Amino acid sequence: MVTLRNAKRHLSRRRDVIDEALENLVQDRLTGTDAPAMNLASDILLAGGKRYRPILTLLAFEAAGGEDESEVLDLALAAELIHTATLVHDDIYDQSKTRRGKPTLHSTHGVSHGIIAGDYLFVMGFGLGGRYDEPIVTRMADTCANIASGELLQFAHIGDLATTPEDYYAIIDGKTAGPFATACACAGMVARSSAADVAALEEYGWEVGRAFQLVDDLLDLTGDVSMGKPRGTDVHEGKMTLPLIHALTMLHGVEREQLADVLQNFSDDRWGELTALLESAGSFDYARQLIENHIDRALNSLDLLPQSDAKRLLAEVAKRSGSRRI
Amino acid sequence: MVTLRNAKRHLSRRRDVIDEALENLVQDRLTGTDAPAMNLASDILLAGGKRYRPILTLLAFEAAGGEDESEVLDLALAAELIHTATLVHDDIYDQSKTRRGKPTLHSTHGVSHGIIAGDYLFVMGFGLGGRYDEPIVTRMADTCANIASGELLQFAHIGDLATTPEDYYAIIDGKTAGPFATACACAGMVARSSAADVAALEEYGWEVGRAFQLVDDLLDLTGDVSMGKPRGTDVHEGKMTLPLIHALTMLHGVEREQLADVLQNFSDDRWGELTALLESAGSFDYARQLIENHIDRALNSLDLLPQSDAKRLLAEVAKRSGSRRI
Repeated sequence: MVTLRNAKRHLSRRRDVIDEALENLVQDRLTGTDAPAMNLASDILLAGGKRYRPILTLLAFEAAGGEDESEVLDLALAAELIHTATLVHDDIYDQSKTRRGKPTLHSTHGVSHGIIAGDYLFVMGFGLGGRYDEPIVTRMADTCANIASGELLQFAHIGDLATTPEDYYAIIDGKTAGPFATACACAGMVARSSAADVAALEEYGWEVGRAFQLVDDLLDLTGDVSMGKPRGTDVHEGKMTLPLIHALTMLHGVEREQLADVLQNFSDDRWGELTALLESAGSFDYARQLIENHIDRALNSLDLLPQSDAKRLLAEVAKRSGSRRI
Repeated sequence: MVTLRNAKRHLSRRRDVIDEALENLVQDRLTGTDAPAMNLASDILLAGGKRYRPILTLLAFEAAGGEDESEVLDLALAAELIHTATLVHDDIYDQSKTRRGKPTLHSTHGVSHGIIAGDYLFVMGFGLGGRYDEPIVTRMADTCANIASGELLQFAHIGDLATTPEDYYAIIDGKTAGPFATACACAGMVARSSAADVAALEEYGWEVGRAFQLVDDLLDLTGDVSMGKPRGTDVHEGKMTLPLIHALTMLHGVEREQLADVLQNFSDDRWGELTALLESAGSFDYARQLIENHIDRALNSLDLLPQSDAKRLLAEVAKRSGSRRI
């Protein structure tokens, strides 16, 4: 049985399944007509992401009563391929230099190759996902369309100090929580689970996805090099994350003006100033509390499902999403 | 019955079907959660392309005995959406300023928005295509993977005077002829046609696609503003098209050196020189003859199919592909 002590080992087992399937996929394609494209895409694909989405897909399938893992593996891979496609394209417009500890694809091969490699990963993901029934395919396509809209919304609010919490949630629901929810819901559908169980898994995905993105955005402000994310990328890019939105709402007078100035004219020597303002507004605590709330809701959404090892692991992933360690 | 005289009207009818379906799709999405993405993508989508791929899809379906057009309409739209997605992304790395008579998406909205809009169009295309059976979805995904590989191969041969005809065909088969072949073959599959008829339609698609791309590449050298394509884009970009590859093979001594110099140091004042060298090598005639051959093969591949209006129109499209006028 899965216990708190052996959860890590159980999760590693799922990650190994994903990593092995990805390696097989890469090897298979390196001998086909799309070898040039796979050659380009294989580095980022095998650079060892956390595999959150495909691991959740496997676990949701099991928790929904699915037994034959091979039935859901293509769906899990599709989630990772499409996610990786968005990373490759994101890195181009964010002008990121490194990803998963390696130079980004476009920085070594140029923007054109980055665009093509991302397109290729998208296409491969849809090829795998397209093997499922129409409701799943339609859901995948709608989710990806919403990723695009979430990204556009994010661009529209770059440097916009009037961004609201609603705007923020629309952005992260499109970009992050939606794909988590769809992966979990579709895994339940592949397991031929009841509509209620599918809805519970979808809800779990939304809430874990929101917690996951809020942690990411918080880390950008507090920094934690051990988690591989340099501090301040979002601030430099003018991305309006929830702690900033909160502080802009809470602060008044001189402090509000100072915060606006820090955000509009940010440089690394203003970290102390920014941190003090966010502390003063209680924005870190606020974000941490919201993360807890989303994790609690994710755990509650699992109540409906029968007890199983997979359900315990889903709960464990939700709890760990607060520290971004599977 | 379709005759030479009324073929144009019959083809227009199909284009109207496609244009109307695209307009409905756009309107539908402009009210949904992906409105921001559709807002961005609708201009290029409705800017009036020739709709070659979706028209061929409709005709292939009919020629294969399909009766209910609504069965194949999503496939036809998918072909156009995916094609448009590749145009939006191509325009970014080709740094093109105009497309279909309008400023390119990235030149008005920026590279990031161009990438996202292309991704969105891809995703929408796969969403529509994903409604069909697995063999069709797999085929679509493989075809798109080969588009990526064809584009990468084209990049690899930029400015490469040693490019062979085999390289050229691998590039255009991946980028252009493959999507034509897949559209026609899948349309036959949707019509529940025999394997032999599907193979005939696929063959037709390959050959029309090759003729289509060869004409495009020839027009780049001879120029024809009425067809909306400015002269010399490919030459400026160092793309090795078949007439150039032919001339590099045929010419020797001083002429070969002169051609290499023209291609490596091209500027608009060297058009006369380039044209004279291509004439001297017989490269225009060679390309025109190959176009005729591909059109003949496309017509021959139709022999197997029963007589029908759609078959006559497919033949008419093949013949007209020589002049790029549907």
